[in-house]
Amino acid sequence: MTVSLLVCTTCRAGQPVIDGQPVPGARLFAALERLGAPEGVRILPVECLSACNSGSAIALSGPGRWSYIYGGMSDADAAEILTGAAAYAAADDGIVPWRDRIAIFRKRSIARIPSIG
Amino acid sequence: MTVSLLVCTTCRAGQPVIDGQPVPGARLFAALERLGAPEGVRILPVECLSACNSGSAIALSGPGRWSYIYGGMSDADAAEILTGAAAYAAADDGIVPWRDRIAIFRKRSIARIPSIG
Repeated sequence: MTVSLLVCTTCRAGQPVIDGQPVPGARLFAALERLGAPEGVRILPVECLSACNSGSAIALSGPGRWSYIYGGMSDADAAEILTGAAAYAAADDGIVPWRDRIAIFRKRSIARIPSIG
Repeated sequence: MTVSLLVCTTCRAGQPVIDGQPVPGARLFAALERLGAPEGVRILPVECLSACNSGSAIALSGPGRWSYIYGGMSDADAAEILTGAAAYAAADDGIVPWRDRIAIFRKRSIARIPSIG
């Protein structure tokens, strides 16, 4: 089963917008695409996860799984984010055991939502 | 179609836990149940939406819709939350036009997640 790594590509992360330069969310998306999605994960751009005060924001989601939203991400976190996404893909219910969860997901969680029927 | 109003019943909302007294999230859930769900909405208890720094937290979710997470809610907001949930139920994609969105949903949004296939 494929899970989705949603990346808010409009996220300014509290920084001023500079003409001709991509916003932090777009830079994060580009960095993730450069590294490439691990097996079982697809990387999808999203316009605004409404977590503007906690950007850059990403979310992990998949059928029958808890969805997770994380904030405070930047392109420097791209490799670690993909490691965390792979662990999420490997967990049937989306709940990665705490000891196996990457540090930035432990520390920068914004919220989670259960899958409902 | 029925949408779900998820209520974090374990939410302490930053308040100390007092023996024998329900936590703020449990009080909010009880207040919502007392008023009763509007048509097309079911009220579901959830253990931890992982938005502990922004509690009490609730979420609105439904098949094929954007999910929304809100924080800073209390039992005093129960009636208004149900009004907002009814508007969410009436919006096919879950996106309630800004002008029709209740004030506490405008001001206390934590994040949203798109429905993905």
